[in-house]
Amino acid sequence: MSELRLQPRSSGIADVAGFRLNGAAADIRGKGDDRLDVALIVSDAPAASAGVFTRNAFAAAPVALCREVLRGGSRVRAVVANSGNANACTGERGHGDAERMQALAAEAAGCEAGEVFVCSTGRIGEALPMDRLGRGIALAGADLGSTATHGERAADAILTSDTRRKVATARVMTAAGTFTVAGMAKGAGMIEPGMATMLAFLATDAMVAPGGLRKALGDAVDTTFNAITVDGDMSTNDTVLLLANGASGVRPAGGDLARFREAVRLVCDALAEKIVGDGEKITKVVELLVGGAASRADAEAVARAIGNSLLVKSSWYGNDPNWGRILDAAGYAHAAFDPARVALAYAASAKHKPVPVFAAGTAAAQNKPRWKKIVARPRFTIRLDLGAGRHAYRLLSADLTEGYVNFNKSE
Amino acid sequence: MSELRLQPRSSGIADVAGFRLNGAAADIRGKGDDRLDVALIVSDAPAASAGVFTRNAFAAAPVALCREVLRGGSRVRAVVANSGNANACTGERGHGDAERMQALAAEAAGCEAGEVFVCSTGRIGEALPMDRLGRGIALAGADLGSTATHGERAADAILTSDTRRKVATARVMTAAGTFTVAGMAKGAGMIEPGMATMLAFLATDAMVAPGGLRKALGDAVDTTFNAITVDGDMSTNDTVLLLANGASGVRPAGGDLARFREAVRLVCDALAEKIVGDGEKITKVVELLVGGAASRADAEAVARAIGNSLLVKSSWYGNDPNWGRILDAAGYAHAAFDPARVALAYAASAKHKPVPVFAAGTAAAQNKPRWKKIVARPRFTIRLDLGAGRHAYRLLSADLTEGYVNFNKSE
Repeated sequence: MSELRLQPRSSGIADVAGFRLNGAAADIRGKGDDRLDVALIVSDAPAASAGVFTRNAFAAAPVALCREVLRGGSRVRAVVANSGNANACTGERGHGDAERMQALAAEAAGCEAGEVFVCSTGRIGEALPMDRLGRGIALAGADLGSTATHGERAADAILTSDTRRKVATARVMTAAGTFTVAGMAKGAGMIEPGMATMLAFLATDAMVAPGGLRKALGDAVDTTFNAITVDGDMSTNDTVLLLANGASGVRPAGGDLARFREAVRLVCDALAEKIVGDGEKITKVVELLVGGAASRADAEAVARAIGNSLLVKSSWYGNDPNWGRILDAAGYAHAAFDPARVALAYAASAKHKPVPVFAAGTAAAQNKPRWKKIVARPRFTIRLDLGAGRHAYRLLSADLTEGYVNFNKSE
Repeated sequence: MSELRLQPRSSGIADVAGFRLNGAAADIRGKGDDRLDVALIVSDAPAASAGVFTRNAFAAAPVALCREVLRGGSRVRAVVANSGNANACTGERGHGDAERMQALAAEAAGCEAGEVFVCSTGRIGEALPMDRLGRGIALAGADLGSTATHGERAADAILTSDTRRKVATARVMTAAGTFTVAGMAKGAGMIEPGMATMLAFLATDAMVAPGGLRKALGDAVDTTFNAITVDGDMSTNDTVLLLANGASGVRPAGGDLARFREAVRLVCDALAEKIVGDGEKITKVVELLVGGAASRADAEAVARAIGNSLLVKSSWYGNDPNWGRILDAAGYAHAAFDPARVALAYAASAKHKPVPVFAAGTAAAQNKPRWKKIVARPRFTIRLDLGAGRHAYRLLSADLTEGYVNFNKSE
C-alpha cells in the first residue's frame, strides 16, 4: 500500500533527486539592484516532460518556443526562466531573443538547445536585455546545486509582484520505493481562467512516460491553476511544466500511478492556493463551491461570475455578507436553474457546517450574526446549490481592495 | 424634410406633451430624511408601450410584473418607480408587494392596475416598506404636473448612488408637425451587458404603434444601454420603457419614422453616456472602438474583455497608457484574429486623428509622449483594429478607482 504526504517544509525542486538548480541576479528590470531574476533548472538525465500553456492570442515568444520543444519529442534537460520582462508583444525580435535565451541556457546546462524550456514573465512589450540576461544565465549555471538554498534561489528568481516564495513538495512511499513530486510557482496579478501571469514548474524523480505526465498534469491544472481567480485577467505567458527524470528508479503503475497523479494534483493545489493567497494586495481568500448544477459548465460559469464580480469582491474586502450581490452575479451567468430552488450558505471552511443564508426564495435573516463572523475570516467558504442537477465546480477567489487599484494604476 | 435636434436643456419627460409626473419623498431607506425616492409618471391618454428588461435569472418581482403588463396589450397609463429598495430576492411576498404598489399607483393615476408599469431599484433582499411607499405614491399623485420642476423631481426620485440627474430630450420637426422624445435614467453601479442597475423611462408624444416602438427601443438599447460598462455587474432590476401617447398628433411614417427611431437612439445614447460618466467613483470615460473583426460577436467580446479588465481599468485611473494590458485582454477574448495584423491607436475622441500605438507586432514607441497626453484626458478613445474582417463594436467603459472599492466594500 502506497502512502502520499504533502511535506510540511519544501525547498521546491531541490527536493527532487537528479535535479540541480539555481537563481541569479541579472538586473533584468534595469534598476541596478541585485534582485534574483533568472532561474535555471537542470535535470542530470534527460527527462520526460509535459506542458500546459496560455490560450491567449498574444501568447509570448517563449510560449511558442516551449510548444516547439514539446513537439520535438518531449525529452528535455533544462528550464530557463526570467522575471521582470515577459518578452511578449515583441514581434520577430522577441522570437529571436527567446531562441538566443534557449541557446545560452543549453550552454550553461551542457545540453542541446532543443532540450531547454524557456519562460519569461514581467512587463509586456519591451525587448529582453540580452547581455544582462546572458550573464545571469551563466552565473546561475556556474553554481547549480540541490541544497535548500539552491531551490529557494530558483523559486525566488521567478517572482514578480509576489510577496512570498511559492514551493510545495509531496512524497509517495510505495512498495517499490519512494518518489517525490515538487514544484515552484509565481502568481500575483493577472490570475484567471486558462491560467494567468502564472508560471509553475514541477519536477519528479518518478519514471513516468510523457503520456502519463500529460494526463496527470492536464487533470491537475484543470482543478487547481485553472480554478483560481484574482482579477480575471489571463496573461500572455502562462506556463505549467512537469519534468520526470526517473532518478528514484520507481516506475509507478496501477494504484501507485493513481497516487502519482494525486501527488501532482496536491502539489498544484498547494501552489494554486499560495498564488491566490498572495494575490496583489488581497486581504482574504474565498472558496466558492457551486453545486447542484445542470452541467459542470453551468457550475463553472456561476462560480466565475461570482468570483469575478467587482461588487461581490469589494463586499468581501469590507467583511460585508452581501448575499444579494452573490445571487445577482449567479443570476447573470446564463446558467439553467430555478431561482426558487437556489440555496446559499456560508461556512468557515469546506469541512465546517454551513450556515444557511438564502433558500426557497427568501433570506434566513435570523442567521445574520453568524454570517458576519464567517465573512470576517481571512479565508471562508461559500456554498451555492443551484437545485438543478448533480454537477459542481470549485473556484478559489480573493477580495478586491483599494490597494490593488493603487498598485496597478501605473507601472 | 424633417429635422432632429437633441435639446441643450432637458426637463426629462416633462418636455413631452400629454405627460404629467412628479417625485415624492417616502423615506424608503428608513433613514428619516426627505430624499426623493418615489416617481410617478402619468399619460393623460392611454399610451402604446415597449420594454426591455434584465436577463438576470433573479429578475426582481417588479420586472415580472412589467412583463405581464406588456403581455396584457401594451396600452398603459402610468409608470411608478421607487429607489432605495429593489424588491429583489424577496420571494412570494415581493410579488405581492409589487402588485400592491401597482394598485396604489393606479389609484393615484386614476386608471386600471394593469395599465401601470412598476419599477424598483436599490438594496436587494429586503421587503418594501409598503406603508411609507403608499404614502409616497399618494403624495406624488396629488401634485402631478408638467413643469421643469415636476420633471426634475421625478428624475431625481429614481437615483441611487448617482451623483447627477440624468435626462435628455430630442425634438423632431416634420412637415406634419413637431414631436418630442425625452427620457430620464438612473445608473451608477452594476453597469454591464444586458443592461445594469439601470432604469430608463422614455416618453414621446408621437403616435407610434407598439411594433414600431419595440423596434425603435430594441435597436437603440442594443447600441447604447447594452454597450456601456462600469463594473461588469448586471442587476436584477434593469428596465427600459418607452411610452407613446400620440399627444402631438403627429404619426411619423417613412423618413419621419426613421427620424423617430434616430431620436429614440439619440436620447438613449445621451442617457447611456451620462450613466457611464457618473459611474461609481470613476474619474474618466473611455470609448472603445473595436473594428476589423471577423464577426460582431468577436468585436464585442474583445471590447468587453478590455472594458472589464481590472488591470486595464486600473491603468486608466493612473493615466498610464499601458497598451500591453489592452492587447493581453484582447488576446483572451477567444476572438479569431492574427496578432501580427492587429493595430492599436489612441485618440482624443472618435473624431480626432488616431495616434498609432502598436502595429505589425511591435510598439510605435516614438509616439509615447502623445499617448500619455491622450490617456490623461477625462474622456478618450481607443481604436483596436483586429485585421480579421469588417465587423465592429463600440463600448463605453470607465476606469476603476480606489474610491469604487471603498464605496462598495459595505452598504
